[in-house]
Amino acid sequence: MACVAKEIEWRIKVEEDDTLKRRVVGCMWAATAGVALKLWKFVKKAWELGVNDPRKFIHCLKVGVALSLVSLFYYWKPLYDGVGGNAMWAVMTVVVVFEYTAGATICKTVNRMCGTSLAAFLGIGVHWVASRAGEQYEPIIIGISLFLLASAATFSRFIPTIKARFDYGAMIFILTFCLVSISGYRVDELLNMAQYRMFTIIIGSILCIIVSVIIRPIWAGFELFVIVTGNLDKMANSLQCCVAQYFDGSEASDEESDKVSEKELLGYKCVLSSKATEEAMANLARWEPGHGRFNFRHPWRQYIKIGASMRSCASCLDALIGCINSDNKASDEMKKNMRIISMKVGANSASVIRELATTMRNMTKSSKLDILVTEMNSAAQELRSLLSSYPNLVNAKRSAQTETAPSDIPQAAKVEIPLMQIIQVVTVASLLIEIVARVEGIVETVEELSDLANFQPEMCVKSKQHSPDSKISPDQQIDEETDRTLQMV
Amino acid sequence: MACVAKEIEWRIKVEEDDTLKRRVVGCMWAATAGVALKLWKFVKKAWELGVNDPRKFIHCLKVGVALSLVSLFYYWKPLYDGVGGNAMWAVMTVVVVFEYTAGATICKTVNRMCGTSLAAFLGIGVHWVASRAGEQYEPIIIGISLFLLASAATFSRFIPTIKARFDYGAMIFILTFCLVSISGYRVDELLNMAQYRMFTIIIGSILCIIVSVIIRPIWAGFELFVIVTGNLDKMANSLQCCVAQYFDGSEASDEESDKVSEKELLGYKCVLSSKATEEAMANLARWEPGHGRFNFRHPWRQYIKIGASMRSCASCLDALIGCINSDNKASDEMKKNMRIISMKVGANSASVIRELATTMRNMTKSSKLDILVTEMNSAAQELRSLLSSYPNLVNAKRSAQTETAPSDIPQAAKVEIPLMQIIQVVTVASLLIEIVARVEGIVETVEELSDLANFQPEMCVKSKQHSPDSKISPDQQIDEETDRTLQMV
Repeated sequence: MACVAKEIEWRIKVEEDDTLKRRVVGCMWAATAGVALKLWKFVKKAWELGVNDPRKFIHCLKVGVALSLVSLFYYWKPLYDGVGGNAMWAVMTVVVVFEYTAGATICKTVNRMCGTSLAAFLGIGVHWVASRAGEQYEPIIIGISLFLLASAATFSRFIPTIKARFDYGAMIFILTFCLVSISGYRVDELLNMAQYRMFTIIIGSILCIIVSVIIRPIWAGFELFVIVTGNLDKMANSLQCCVAQYFDGSEASDEESDKVSEKELLGYKCVLSSKATEEAMANLARWEPGHGRFNFRHPWRQYIKIGASMRSCASCLDALIGCINSDNKASDEMKKNMRIISMKVGANSASVIRELATTMRNMTKSSKLDILVTEMNSAAQELRSLLSSYPNLVNAKRSAQTETAPSDIPQAAKVEIPLMQIIQVVTVASLLIEIVARVEGIVETVEELSDLANFQPEMCVKSKQHSPDSKISPDQQIDEETDRTLQMV
Repeated sequence: MACVAKEIEWRIKVEEDDTLKRRVVGCMWAATAGVALKLWKFVKKAWELGVNDPRKFIHCLKVGVALSLVSLFYYWKPLYDGVGGNAMWAVMTVVVVFEYTAGATICKTVNRMCGTSLAAFLGIGVHWVASRAGEQYEPIIIGISLFLLASAATFSRFIPTIKARFDYGAMIFILTFCLVSISGYRVDELLNMAQYRMFTIIIGSILCIIVSVIIRPIWAGFELFVIVTGNLDKMANSLQCCVAQYFDGSEASDEESDKVSEKELLGYKCVLSSKATEEAMANLARWEPGHGRFNFRHPWRQYIKIGASMRSCASCLDALIGCINSDNKASDEMKKNMRIISMKVGANSASVIRELATTMRNMTKSSKLDILVTEMNSAAQELRSLLSSYPNLVNAKRSAQTETAPSDIPQAAKVEIPLMQIIQVVTVASLLIEIVARVEGIVETVEELSDLANFQPEMCVKSKQHSPDSKISPDQQIDEETDRTLQMV
C-alpha cells in the first residue's frame, strides 16, 4: 500500500517537475522571442532610417574610411617609426572631430588646432617659468595657473559669441593646457612630446577635412537652404489647404486623401519647430568653403531671419486653424459669400510664398514676385471691402428674401443680424489679412537675402531652374532629418 | 639762391616727416584705444553675464577645483607611482565630462564609463582573435573589425533614442575600441594598460560627480522647472497686459512704464522659443538623482508636453497681438461695449495660468483651480453671449439715436452696420475664446503632471508655499540663461 502510494507520489512529482520544466522552458522561449522581436523591430526601424536617407549610411562609411586611413599609422612601420605612440592623437582627433556635416567637421578641426596650439605655447611657457622658480614652488605655480586659466576658459564658454563659434576650442584649450603643464612636471622631453602631438593632431585634422569634403560632402549650408525652402513650400501648402478645406468643406473625400491633406495641412508645424536646427546649421555653415552656388561669404545669418518671419506667419496660421476647428461654426451661407475672395487671398499668399521658395532655389531676383505681392495685397483689399460692404450684402439678400416672402419676416428680424454666425468667418478673414501682412514680412527678409547674396535678375535660366532640386534628396528624408535633429536638441 | 631753396625744401621735408610721424603715432594710438575699448566692452559684458548669474562663476570655480584635485595624481608621488602616465586619462575625463548641470555631468560620466568598458572588452577580444590568426592576417582582421564596428556605432548615433541618451557613449565606444584594438598591435602589455586606463577614468568620473553634485549643484531638472513655471507667469502677464492695453488704450503713460509693459507684453516670446532648451533639460534631468522635492523618477517628459501646450497657446496670443496692432482699428464705442467682459476673460485666463504655475511651485493639487477654470469658461461663455446679443445692442443704441435725431438718419443707415468697425473687436474676442480653449489644454497637461508626480492635495502648506522661489535666482538671469542657451543651440 505504502509502496503504491509512494509510486503515485513519485509520478505526481515527476509530472509536476515536467510541467514546471515545460513552463520554465516556455517562459524562456517567450522571453527570448519577445527580446528578439523587439530587437528586430529596433533594427528594422534603424534600417528604415538609413534607407530613407542614404547619406547617413555614406557618413558611416566615411567615418570607417577615415579611421582605417589613420590606423595606417600603427600598421605601416615607416609611419609608426615616425610618430610612435603619439599616433594615438591622430586616431583620437579623427574620432572626436568627424561630424555629419562638413561645416561641423571644419569648425571642430579649426577649434582643435587653434585650442591645442595656443594651450601648448602657454603651457610650455608656464612650465618654463615654474621650473625656474625652484622645485618647491613649481607645483604651486603650475597649480595656481592651472586653476585660473581653466576657470577663465570655462567662463569664456558662457559668452554667446565664443559659445557659438569656439566652444569646442575652449574645451580643448583647457585639456591641452592641463596635459602640457601637469605632465611637464613628470615628463622630461616636454617640447618633443608637444611637437609630436601637435603634428599628429594636424595630420588627423587634415585627414578628416579631406574625407569629409571630398567623399559625398554634406554641407550644413545646403541643409539649411533645403530646410528653409522646404518649409516655405510646406507653409504655402498648409495655408492653401486650410483655407480650401474650410470654405470647400469637402467632407465626402476618402480616407487616403484625407490623410494626405491632413499631412499637408499640418506642414506648417515643421516651420514652428525648426528654429534650433536652423540656428545650428547657420552657425556651422559659415565655416564652410564655397560649394555649389553658395560662395564662402554667403549670408547664412539671413536664413535665420527668414525662418523667424516664417515662424511669425506660421503662428498666425496656427491660430487660424485653431479658429477653424473651434465650436463656433459659421453658417454655410456666410461661408459661400466669402468663399471666392477668401480662397483667392489664400491662394495668392500661397503663390507668393512658393515664388519666394523658387527665388531662393534659382538664386535669381524674381520678376513675378512684385506682381504676385500686388495681387495678394489687392485680394486682401478686396476681402476688406467685402467685409465693409457686408451689411449691404446681407441687406440685399434679405431684400431679395423679402421679395419672395414679404409677409413671413417680422420687422425685428430685419435688424437682428445673427452675429454669432459671422464671427468665425470674420475671424478667419481677419486672420487671413494678418497672414498677408506677415507674408510681406517674409518677402522683405527674402529680398534682403537677394540683395546680400547678389541674386541676379531673372534671365534665361530656365534650363538651370531645377538644378538644386535634383540635388535634394527626397522631401521625406529632410523632414525626418529635421524632426530627428529637433528631437535630439 | 640754390642754398636757400635747398634749406626750404629740407624744412618742408622735416615738417612733412613730422606731420607723417605724428599722424602715424596718432593712428596707432587711436587703433590701440579702439582695440582696448572693444576689449573693455567685451570684458564688461562678460562680467555682467557672470554677475547676473553668479552660478556661472561658481561653475568655473568648480571646474578649477576638480582639475586641481585630479592633478594631485601628478604632484603627489605616491599617487603618481600608482598610476603613472595613465593619470592623463583622469585629467582628460575631468575636462571633457564636467558640464554645467549635474544631469549633463552624470550623463556623460555614465556614458564614458559604459562606452569605455564595452569597447575595451570587445577590443581585447578582437585583439586576441587577431593575434591567434598569425602575423599576416592580424592587421587585416583588426582593420576590418574596426571599419565595421566604427561604422555601426556611428550609425547608432543617428537613432533618436540612442542619440538622446547615449550619443557621447557611442563616440567613446569608437574611440576606445580604436585605441585598444589598434595600439594592441604595437603595445605589448595591453591588458595592463587597459586596466590602468579604466581605473583612472573611473577615478576622474567619480571625482567629477562628487564635485558637481556636492558643491552648489545646478540641477537640469530644477532649471527646467524654473523655465516652465517662469514661462507660465510670463504668458499670464503677456495675456493680461495685451488685453488691458487694447481695451484701456492708456496712451498717456510715461516712457518708463511703457518700457516695462512692453517687456511684459512680449514675455510670451520666451515661451515660443524655449522648445530646444526644454527638451535638452528634460533629457538631462532624468539622469539626476532625487534633489529638493523632485524624486529620481520625476516625470520630466511631462514638462515638455506642458511646454508644447503653452506654445500652442502662445502662438494664438501672437496672432492676437498681431491683430491688435493691425490697421483695422475698431471704434472706441465698440471697444467700450466689449471692454469689461473681454478684460474679464483675459484676467481669468491669466489667473488660471498663474494658478497652474503656483500648483507646480507648491507641488500640491490646487483647490482653487477648478473654480478658476469654471470662472474662465463662464467668462468666455459670457463673451460668446455678448457677441450673440450684439445686433440687439447696436439696435438698441440706434433706436436711442433715433429718438434724439430721428430725421437725420436715412433709412439705409438703419441696416448698414459698420462691420469694418466690429471686425477687430470680433477677431480679438474670438481669439480670446480660442485662447481659453488652449489654456484648458495647459490645465490638462499640468493635471497629468500632478497625477504622474503624485502631487498632494492642498493642505496647510502655507509656510512652505514659497520655498522653491527662494531658491530661484532672479528672474532676469533665467531669462538671459534661456536666451543665451537658445542663441547657442
